[in-house]
Amino acid sequence: MTSLKFVFLFLLISFSASAQKDYKLWLQYNVVSNSSIASEYKNNLKEIVVLGNSETIKIAQKELQTAFQDMLGAIPEIKSDIKGENNLIVGSQSSLNAEIKKELKSDFDKINTEGFIIKTVFTKNKKQIVITGKNDVAVLYGVFSFLRILQTNKAIKNLDILDSPKTRIRILNHWDNLDRTVERGYAGFSLWNWQKLPDFIDQRYIDYARANASIGINGTVLTNVNANALILTPQYLEKVEALANVFRPYGIKVYLTARFSAPIEIGNLKTADPKDPEVINWWKNKAVEIYKRIPDFGGFLVKANSEGQPGPQNYGRDHVDGANMLADAVTPFGGVIMWRAFVYSEHDANDRAKQAYSEFQPYDGKFKDNVIVQVKNGAIDFQPREPFHPLFGAMPKTPLMMEFQITQEYLGFSTHLVFLPKLFQEVLESDTYEKGKGSTVAKVVDGTLHQNKLTGIAGVANIGNDLNWTGHPFAQANWYGFGRLVWNPYLDSEIIADEWLRSTFSNDENFVKPVKKMMIESREAVVNYMTPLGLHHIMDTGHHYGPGPWVSNLSRPEWNPTYYHKADKNGIGFDRSKTGTNATAQYMPEVEKLFDNLETCPEKDLLWFHHVSWDYKLKNGQTLWNGLALKYQEGVDQVKEMQNVWKKTEKYIDSERFHEVGMLLEIQYKEAKWWRDACLLYFQQFSGKGLPKGVEKPTQTLDYFKSLKFPFAPGNG
Amino acid sequence: MTSLKFVFLFLLISFSASAQKDYKLWLQYNVVSNSSIASEYKNNLKEIVVLGNSETIKIAQKELQTAFQDMLGAIPEIKSDIKGENNLIVGSQSSLNAEIKKELKSDFDKINTEGFIIKTVFTKNKKQIVITGKNDVAVLYGVFSFLRILQTNKAIKNLDILDSPKTRIRILNHWDNLDRTVERGYAGFSLWNWQKLPDFIDQRYIDYARANASIGINGTVLTNVNANALILTPQYLEKVEALANVFRPYGIKVYLTARFSAPIEIGNLKTADPKDPEVINWWKNKAVEIYKRIPDFGGFLVKANSEGQPGPQNYGRDHVDGANMLADAVTPFGGVIMWRAFVYSEHDANDRAKQAYSEFQPYDGKFKDNVIVQVKNGAIDFQPREPFHPLFGAMPKTPLMMEFQITQEYLGFSTHLVFLPKLFQEVLESDTYEKGKGSTVAKVVDGTLHQNKLTGIAGVANIGNDLNWTGHPFAQANWYGFGRLVWNPYLDSEIIADEWLRSTFSNDENFVKPVKKMMIESREAVVNYMTPLGLHHIMDTGHHYGPGPWVSNLSRPEWNPTYYHKADKNGIGFDRSKTGTNATAQYMPEVEKLFDNLETCPEKDLLWFHHVSWDYKLKNGQTLWNGLALKYQEGVDQVKEMQNVWKKTEKYIDSERFHEVGMLLEIQYKEAKWWRDACLLYFQQFSGKGLPKGVEKPTQTLDYFKSLKFPFAPGNG
Repeated sequence: MTSLKFVFLFLLISFSASAQKDYKLWLQYNVVSNSSIASEYKNNLKEIVVLGNSETIKIAQKELQTAFQDMLGAIPEIKSDIKGENNLIVGSQSSLNAEIKKELKSDFDKINTEGFIIKTVFTKNKKQIVITGKNDVAVLYGVFSFLRILQTNKAIKNLDILDSPKTRIRILNHWDNLDRTVERGYAGFSLWNWQKLPDFIDQRYIDYARANASIGINGTVLTNVNANALILTPQYLEKVEALANVFRPYGIKVYLTARFSAPIEIGNLKTADPKDPEVINWWKNKAVEIYKRIPDFGGFLVKANSEGQPGPQNYGRDHVDGANMLADAVTPFGGVIMWRAFVYSEHDANDRAKQAYSEFQPYDGKFKDNVIVQVKNGAIDFQPREPFHPLFGAMPKTPLMMEFQITQEYLGFSTHLVFLPKLFQEVLESDTYEKGKGSTVAKVVDGTLHQNKLTGIAGVANIGNDLNWTGHPFAQANWYGFGRLVWNPYLDSEIIADEWLRSTFSNDENFVKPVKKMMIESREAVVNYMTPLGLHHIMDTGHHYGPGPWVSNLSRPEWNPTYYHKADKNGIGFDRSKTGTNATAQYMPEVEKLFDNLETCPEKDLLWFHHVSWDYKLKNGQTLWNGLALKYQEGVDQVKEMQNVWKKTEKYIDSERFHEVGMLLEIQYKEAKWWRDACLLYFQQFSGKGLPKGVEKPTQTLDYFKSLKFPFAPGNG
Repeated sequence: MTSLKFVFLFLLISFSASAQKDYKLWLQYNVVSNSSIASEYKNNLKEIVVLGNSETIKIAQKELQTAFQDMLGAIPEIKSDIKGENNLIVGSQSSLNAEIKKELKSDFDKINTEGFIIKTVFTKNKKQIVITGKNDVAVLYGVFSFLRILQTNKAIKNLDILDSPKTRIRILNHWDNLDRTVERGYAGFSLWNWQKLPDFIDQRYIDYARANASIGINGTVLTNVNANALILTPQYLEKVEALANVFRPYGIKVYLTARFSAPIEIGNLKTADPKDPEVINWWKNKAVEIYKRIPDFGGFLVKANSEGQPGPQNYGRDHVDGANMLADAVTPFGGVIMWRAFVYSEHDANDRAKQAYSEFQPYDGKFKDNVIVQVKNGAIDFQPREPFHPLFGAMPKTPLMMEFQITQEYLGFSTHLVFLPKLFQEVLESDTYEKGKGSTVAKVVDGTLHQNKLTGIAGVANIGNDLNWTGHPFAQANWYGFGRLVWNPYLDSEIIADEWLRSTFSNDENFVKPVKKMMIESREAVVNYMTPLGLHHIMDTGHHYGPGPWVSNLSRPEWNPTYYHKADKNGIGFDRSKTGTNATAQYMPEVEKLFDNLETCPEKDLLWFHHVSWDYKLKNGQTLWNGLALKYQEGVDQVKEMQNVWKKTEKYIDSERFHEVGMLLEIQYKEAKWWRDACLLYFQQFSGKGLPKGVEKPTQTLDYFKSLKFPFAPGNG
């Protein structure tokens, strides 16, 4: 046999190599190629001592085994008691021996129930690494955090980490319908295969739970806010129960959306009036029924009296009546009600940006303790950029939950690369001035500003049944980054990008450095080529894909892009200052003053708050028209630069993901030009001015752009 | 480092192990564990000589490399000329050297343009294996066939294989809509991500093409027979072109469904009358436009004047007028028209089973040469069992294409394990007696009975974007088996099951033997627990999932199960004999006689052709009522036995697929009982008789079964 000329191809690309890498998300567990780091890891991880045998602890153990096998090529022996040294000891506080417990006493005092400790300790003169927490799920969080250290090739010689989540409800909102379509979903269809539940447990449910646990997400709302009452029938609750059973050992609670009219639709009642005794009773019984199946059921998310959804106002009641009635039903079981403040009415002629504040601010202090009001990050609707929502900082007696959108409804679906943690961070760092300078949105949301016990951040999921979960390989970073920021709303998005790139692709600095820069700048690129200088909601109608600043024929005025940009011969922008709708008055005086004054209003928010003359001089000396055109061009150029950066990554990563991202960036570049050309040609009709030097000629006519139709754009409705 | 206690876990189950195995279909390329077989392979495959450098040949080379790496742990060196011996020589006829060409001269005379030769030859006293054919795609077929030999661990010492496909159009019909829902799709949603096409080429498109090429499928209809005309607009044709470019090197042609009214809907014409010069011209121009993009475009599949679809009859024309008009449009480019014979009308009071024959048989000989009439295997609609369609054997002057349904619309969706090649084989082996005994359906379809040049078999695909492609791991066998049978309609389904099991799971006889038996028997099990003794179309309405023999309120009589079983106090069954609708007269006299006579009619088709008294004595001595009840019980028992067989396979296969199939069999068992109980309780109302000994008591009441509703059952419409 020695005469055979066999050539080993180590990097042979087989059938599903791509599928597998894409599928593994940030848990690639790539081989540690730096031999001194690998040695350090092996020397410090001679055995693993696993304490406890709950499902959660078994998951933690399996995770360590998988990771060590893949990263180090072998698995330290698993033990159940401590003998040698340089062991990894994994277990909850109560499972630790007295000596270690004592050693960690003061550390345990500093973490909360979900926090963990990763620490190098010496017991009987033997050096060990301990991963622990107050319960098994906290231990699992510690294990994933430890593996992140390994994945990013950081030192483990001397560890001393205490980390607790700063928010209580860290939750994904799935806008998934029972027919498996996903409203605003761009990564295929719903993961939840209701047809095969409860008896068939898809491996993806487990992998989904695992991915979420790895970033500290502890809740999931399975169903769309535009809810179908059938989810609350026994036929479906049985299926929800099966999912809850899968998610439980990963520390993930299941929540559902409650359709306010469910008592009528599935309960045979004549009303859904929250003051009606039969209705109250129906919800109480429904809660009993649910908690009997799912003792740790999280509670309900409710969209009421918004965009056609039923709600308490149908019966002359208000949001407080509705929320508190549901709160009472789940109180005996520790459940919560997440009541959305995303409301605006076709019967309200007021600036849409003002309506949620106007309606909800007066309710401050009136909700029950287990109600949290869920507020979108901005006052309109998940735009590429919005000033922070004025409700943050305006309801000191009410817990407010942040609602971010991870799925890219208004940001290029799953074909545009945009790193959203940069957007989330901008919102969280915004200063409300509620209690003076430094009263950031993050402090409102994590409860430190008002000492709220109930806190949370929700993210509208970008997850579907695509092989790679999120449609775009880089959209995985938005899921990841959401989880990391929700755990710690003060985390810098650069750190998140760094962790994610290393865990997902490579630790090579020549890869990480330029690609991280590309990610960080990607969000501003999208703002530039879609909605620069405070423009907003000028996407095409319904599906929200591509530009549609000309759309003006929708039945409700506030659904039309023309409502938002108000371009005319004199200029462009929505006057929300005191000469206009006075929306600025909804902010604290310091902020109001800043936004209200054309001179002090940040240029990134300019056209959000002001109608500005085409000849207005921007800070860089350009007229508004020229500056706007140059911003659009800048966005296009930034995408071109992203392409250049990406082209140089080929040698660092697998060819499939390299090609995937390359194809997607090509689409993004094409569409950035589409945005630039369509918007500038349209606005040019009002400005009557030529394009400044440096802005490329349009590739098509305005009529061409207006003629484009996308009847089957995904995620629409 | 030697002191470290590292334990290697070779079979560690990581994150995506299951996803990967499921995804790889029958191309697992498992390690050849038998060392003498592995040695034989290595000894006979010292180098690979690849001749040619077309895309197709590169694919063949990559396939061999992937397979050898995975099965033998190493890859023989790739050469471009023959030097040593015991080489594998891969290339088309024209690329072979003169000596080998001469050696294979008589073999080439025996294969058709898609056939291949796999042969051990001696040139210059050196032994080599040659894989060749008349073109590169034929070579690729040969390579996949060769790899099947290896995957099934068969000897390669002395090969002499000539194999040509017996049908020309071997095609999948995707009933995929432009919004990615799939009519009758139970494996997720459409693979075709129209939103991201043409610029994003999903790896799955490539993997799909590869899987199809491996079983000889050479065509795919991308869109639903209930067609949307937008697919014929430039916006979509650009996307179709991108898919055609991906599929071409794999020998797969793209076809589309043509909505007959497209000239009105997207052409701005006032009519779609096939005799109207403007309409004729519109289709001619459309063909020119399509072929400019896709020079090897296959042609159109048309569902016309059926179930509400538009067609020539809307203009007082007939199917021949419609088909021939379209045929003329694609003739200059070698395209074909597949015109479906699946028609029945609410204005026709005749037995639905008779209508397609009544309408189409008189057209025999009237279609243009490039029209093929596509006929479902039975006269109703893809039931668990139907007698063969009477059009087979009744249109000697017209090429007839078989339409099978691979997706399990009426056979338990993707939760029931049923091996459909057994069903397909039964149909193909049926004797039409058209030219005397032995005039089987297979001979009609492969053209040998009437010397048709245009031949084909279509299968309604069961493929979706589920990780494992088909929803049920064993549903992959139906895709595989369809391909194999279409290549050779005389192949025994046991051979297919054997090949598939070995390629997909294991060559261990202790696994293969019992599981093969289980597969072969699975189809009869489904017939028994759903529709024994010739019953048909008693599924619940719309979605067709689960039993609904009581349904009688649909607007069209022939949509109601009661129309089909006609149970009453006297008995049950549809009298299609000469005392009834005389549908039997549509068959040749020998067959007519057989079916028409209650005594000779096969009991498996009894209630299809006869209304039979409850007290009728079956061949086994039981009364019809008792026999029917016992058949239902037998079906349930067979599923129980399938579970028993499967439970013993754990040690032979990966745990994920073991558990997946286990969960699905549990669902199947539950639902087999549901079928038995619901049907027997319902029919018992008419028979007025008790259940015979051996039949288990119903688990619920009839009212309970009638109350079950599945508003979001997948694939519905």
